[in-house]
Amino acid sequence: MNIAILGGTGKEGAGLGARWALAGHHIIIGSRDEERARTKAGEMRERTQRVTIIGHSNLDAARLGDVVVIALPALGLDVALPPLREACRGKVVVSTVVPLTFGGPRLFTPPPAGSSAEEVQALLPGSKVVAAFHHIAAHELAETAHAIECDLLVCGGDADAKAVVTALGTSMGLRTVDVGALTNAGPLEGITAVLATINRRYKLKNSGIKITGL
Amino acid sequence: MNIAILGGTGKEGAGLGARWALAGHHIIIGSRDEERARTKAGEMRERTQRVTIIGHSNLDAARLGDVVVIALPALGLDVALPPLREACRGKVVVSTVVPLTFGGPRLFTPPPAGSSAEEVQALLPGSKVVAAFHHIAAHELAETAHAIECDLLVCGGDADAKAVVTALGTSMGLRTVDVGALTNAGPLEGITAVLATINRRYKLKNSGIKITGL
Repeated sequence: MNIAILGGTGKEGAGLGARWALAGHHIIIGSRDEERARTKAGEMRERTQRVTIIGHSNLDAARLGDVVVIALPALGLDVALPPLREACRGKVVVSTVVPLTFGGPRLFTPPPAGSSAEEVQALLPGSKVVAAFHHIAAHELAETAHAIECDLLVCGGDADAKAVVTALGTSMGLRTVDVGALTNAGPLEGITAVLATINRRYKLKNSGIKITGL
Repeated sequence: MNIAILGGTGKEGAGLGARWALAGHHIIIGSRDEERARTKAGEMRERTQRVTIIGHSNLDAARLGDVVVIALPALGLDVALPPLREACRGKVVVSTVVPLTFGGPRLFTPPPAGSSAEEVQALLPGSKVVAAFHHIAAHELAETAHAIECDLLVCGGDADAKAVVTALGTSMGLRTVDVGALTNAGPLEGITAVLATINRRYKLKNSGIKITGL
């Protein structure tokens, strides 16, 4: 599958891309700065020893992807996404975006839409948004020789789209837990605030969560 | 320790009370309806074979408790709590309240304060509020012969108060994870929406969470 990762030069996006490349997928790293995307893709090819990683502008990446993964900062989606609307139409769009504000009075700062994923869905109305991959630490993704100790929690309004994302999770060894409709994306994104706080307090880089009783 | 549980006639409050009574604590079940509280306390004495469980009005329970646990519905705190302000002054107050709205457009519906726990703190300004015990399923609590498969996530502004709550968790066999300041209570409460959805989708009664990497 061709997976475009917008904002893929960041740690989380690049970590997902590396895991998926190793699982046999074709990766298009997207960036505002096409040159940076190409450089990052080159580094990732070297690290993973997979040639199926290329770099493009966010727009060209979105055009080439069967699935489009949004790994952009929460602030600025309203500027970054509207130009990509046609490129994303009809596609599965995975929002990994977490609305966290470091250094302010409150770490978890969801937008008026309730969650970043719902904001993405509003900005890309023709796409099928699934919220997922918020809790898999970049540090865990980067250690590609090790299994990831975290469940994949997903929510979204389209069952087929969730099945595609579940398959992407399975391809990197994750158990998927279906957390219902996209209106649950706020609580999912909030868990990242919990994990970020735990990482800071306990001096960790890779806390994660597992659902018990399942 | 004397533990008052306001709204303790509900499943979650009664479950916590039974576990704590078995751990050697003295439990005061509080209710708007004192007679209901007495009846519930009697049932709990019979079930646990512990005589250290009594029933009172919410106000008298709050007066008698060293620690006051709020197990009330999220809606109506602004009516229920102001009369208890003096009774709770200087005490550790544990908010287990989860702002969920079933049957509406959105399950997780935090109040303007950001979380129910922050609302509790604003309504009981002289107390030390800790948000905790949102994720331990009532069904798990009720099975007192079994260990609970869930971490205890706590947040709050007072380190000593969090230590008291940690000890209460330890007394029922839980591992505590410190999730920082009370401004993280929203994300903690939101996790209950995630677990409630998982319970419904997977036909469970007792999903929970564990933090990995810790």
